[in-house]
Amino acid sequence: MEDGEFERAPSHFTDRIGTGDWPLEAGRYRLVVSRACPWASRAVIVRRLLGLESALSMAVADPIQDSRSWRFTLDPGDRDPVLGIRYLGEAYAARDASYSGGISVPAIVDVPSGRLVTNDYPEITLNLELEWAPLHRPGAPSLYPEALRDEIDAVNEDVFRDVNNGVYMAGFATRQRAYSRVVARLFARLDALESRLSSQRYLVGDTITEADIRLWVTLVRFDVVYHGHFKCNRRKITEYPALWAYSRDLFQTPGFGDTVNFDHIARHYYEVHRNINPTGIVPIGPDLSLWLTPHGREELGGRPFGDGTPPGPVAEGEEVPSVAAAA
Amino acid sequence: MEDGEFERAPSHFTDRIGTGDWPLEAGRYRLVVSRACPWASRAVIVRRLLGLESALSMAVADPIQDSRSWRFTLDPGDRDPVLGIRYLGEAYAARDASYSGGISVPAIVDVPSGRLVTNDYPEITLNLELEWAPLHRPGAPSLYPEALRDEIDAVNEDVFRDVNNGVYMAGFATRQRAYSRVVARLFARLDALESRLSSQRYLVGDTITEADIRLWVTLVRFDVVYHGHFKCNRRKITEYPALWAYSRDLFQTPGFGDTVNFDHIARHYYEVHRNINPTGIVPIGPDLSLWLTPHGREELGGRPFGDGTPPGPVAEGEEVPSVAAAA
Repeated sequence: MEDGEFERAPSHFTDRIGTGDWPLEAGRYRLVVSRACPWASRAVIVRRLLGLESALSMAVADPIQDSRSWRFTLDPGDRDPVLGIRYLGEAYAARDASYSGGISVPAIVDVPSGRLVTNDYPEITLNLELEWAPLHRPGAPSLYPEALRDEIDAVNEDVFRDVNNGVYMAGFATRQRAYSRVVARLFARLDALESRLSSQRYLVGDTITEADIRLWVTLVRFDVVYHGHFKCNRRKITEYPALWAYSRDLFQTPGFGDTVNFDHIARHYYEVHRNINPTGIVPIGPDLSLWLTPHGREELGGRPFGDGTPPGPVAEGEEVPSVAAAA
Repeated sequence: MEDGEFERAPSHFTDRIGTGDWPLEAGRYRLVVSRACPWASRAVIVRRLLGLESALSMAVADPIQDSRSWRFTLDPGDRDPVLGIRYLGEAYAARDASYSGGISVPAIVDVPSGRLVTNDYPEITLNLELEWAPLHRPGAPSLYPEALRDEIDAVNEDVFRDVNNGVYMAGFATRQRAYSRVVARLFARLDALESRLSSQRYLVGDTITEADIRLWVTLVRFDVVYHGHFKCNRRKITEYPALWAYSRDLFQTPGFGDTVNFDHIARHYYEVHRNINPTGIVPIGPDLSLWLTPHGREELGGRPFGDGTPPGPVAEGEEVPSVAAAA
């Protein structure tokens, strides 16, 4: 790690449901997320695409952490109604009373014991796609098909380093050199993705895969927070014709845009990171109704859900504000 | 002034050359500017359009002030070669030893006495256009023609409140409500200007006037600093077809783009305002070579310099870096 460079902490709890001590059981676990967080949003999307809503319940944390981190202040009595806790950190402590590391989302908690099972964001979605298969809905798409796994993994590695994590490294850099190197790599990668997505509808194969989900959670936040707050201002995503159309295509696909809360996103980044935004003022941001404009990507072919089907309506109580109204 | 709202200090020294104690004399006065500062840049442009370079010499301050404010650290020995001072504040002190207010550019200093004459930014350009007329070059345009003065003043008033000063009020707001009100007014005004400039080449009449200069100095900085640093992120200027073409048209007109130093602009705002950018990291910014793309505004007619002519080449020693190279 070079001086002035931001380093992401590794996940501490990496257990996998459906293996070892944690049997797969519908209704036993609770996914804790923030709708602000891109890493958690991957899991929110995958849970919905695979129809795991009733098998794996979901707690949505307040986008604004306090000194004790993620909290359930959006819920009645400021407690998660299922886990009965006020802070996600309580589930971490139930798992390991001596733990003193960071508290992160996404996290999966064992409801009967109240113990954290995993906060391993790179593996949680793969776990939902693989070990959780017996609980998938009929028509659930194959998001991590065996034949494409090597290619998906390769794309994910580049996208993680340069894009998903790259925006954070740009935003939290404290030295000009570290910032400049990271932001150059980010935009070189976006240029390459723009080219790749100019002739194919999705990143790998002709259907939506884990690779699309991982890229998209960063793209959907880009113009709202990363462009200004994290100083990734070479271009907006709206200035990349293919990336912008791709972003809207997925936004308008059931399971993507219907999981996004732009208010949570903007408030989280701008209010929480006082080290880079001391006033805590949340900018007006771009016109969100543009997300609903036609994207024309159908022309490229592709079968969004492959041999599967789109997910049904959003579960009751899990609705997000409409961007049409928000604009 | 509402709570959390930024207030611009009035100019303190408002004398006018060519009146009272300050006779108009070629070579007697020195204009002190920063190329970062929009208020100073108005005077840089007007001086060049009117061909006052040899009559009124110019000192360019370092874009990064220190605790004693504007300084001449770009010059050999860190002193202005004509005034012999290290800080602009020395000319303020020579004028009024008891002065304890802000030190601002643009400023005009009387070279023989070393005393500040004026820092009255709204009047300095009008002074150059009116009282300085005997020293204008042959073919100098009429930037503040008597017949259009009321209309120019009216446009300037709206543009100052909502745009020139509006971006600062947005950027320095410390309360969400104050920010939101100001930024809404800013974009409503940009929308109105977009509409006005869709059917006419310049703001008032069919030639370049003081009104264009005042608006343009903010537009040219908008996407580079105001959009991100000052949180004016509803749209970039590049997303307004008429405003963006208008901005490029003037950029490509002699006297405008050839006075702009984007490096000074970006470093000044991002390095100096540590209260809103604690790391001092200067973002990569948009691709500046876009400023040189065709604008198509000739179709709207208009006579840029009216009955006058364009200014000649930039004076030796006053060149700025090319945006073609900077990109």
